[in-house]
Amino acid sequence: MGAPLPTAERLAVLEGARAAPPGATWALLGVVGHERYVEAREHKELAARSPSLGRPEAARAALIPIRKSEAWWALPQEERRAIFEERSRHIATSLKYLPAVARRLHHSRDLGEPFDFLTWFEFAPVDEAGFDELVAMLRATDEWGFVEREVDIRLER
Amino acid sequence: MGAPLPTAERLAVLEGARAAPPGATWALLGVVGHERYVEAREHKELAARSPSLGRPEAARAALIPIRKSEAWWALPQEERRAIFEERSRHIATSLKYLPAVARRLHHSRDLGEPFDFLTWFEFAPVDEAGFDELVAMLRATDEWGFVEREVDIRLER
Repeated sequence: MGAPLPTAERLAVLEGARAAPPGATWALLGVVGHERYVEAREHKELAARSPSLGRPEAARAALIPIRKSEAWWALPQEERRAIFEERSRHIATSLKYLPAVARRLHHSRDLGEPFDFLTWFEFAPVDEAGFDELVAMLRATDEWGFVEREVDIRLER
Repeated sequence: MGAPLPTAERLAVLEGARAAPPGATWALLGVVGHERYVEAREHKELAARSPSLGRPEAARAALIPIRKSEAWWALPQEERRAIFEERSRHIATSLKYLPAVARRLHHSRDLGEPFDFLTWFEFAPVDEAGFDELVAMLRATDEWGFVEREVDIRLER
């Protein structure tokens, strides 16, 4: 949805980098920050069921950069939370795909980047169909009505 | 509280800048982002009573950069909100000092800055005592138990 990114042959994931490596076709910057919508009980459940990144069997990855609309960001916190979870079941749906999918969310909006979030996922090839199902369910939610740009990049790790 | 900043004779407020101007003693970077804790009803009340920046009579200003502790950022959203407003009355207290004080909040944490927020206030000299009272009340709250660095910089505009 929205403008795609130019195709690149390889993706380097650099931790601690503050600028694009020379010669990159494109570079996206994000920061692993605090949680914005997850409540205490949900945090505990997610933490208990989330695998860590870098599992040897997780040979597939997905990078899905997302930008939401100005209308989303203008909503007050409790309305964003209500759309995110009470109406769209973002966390409840995601929990069903744990521990198959390892995730990490990076925030980009305050950095003046073209996307607001860089979402990163790692899973075994056998779990890719489940991951596709999860992404399709999230894309069908009210929350996704506020997504105005999204690129789905699949990788071999 | 925490380490002070070196004294500077003048402060330049640069909009759209992404780096320190040459020769600056120090520079702080922040982004005006969406609201993190304010609810819809509070947003309306604040918007109705908040003056704009740059009023000619507001000859005084304060820049108060703030860093909160890791313990704060590790709290789930609803606990941060509860400490911020239900226990510390951050918004309700601030509302009493409107429209005397014009404010703007800048977020710095995701930028890797030394502070999490840059808070900026403008008021008439006659309202400085009221502003001091507001700041003293906020410093006495539970929320301020999570502040680990704060510098109170007063300026003539």
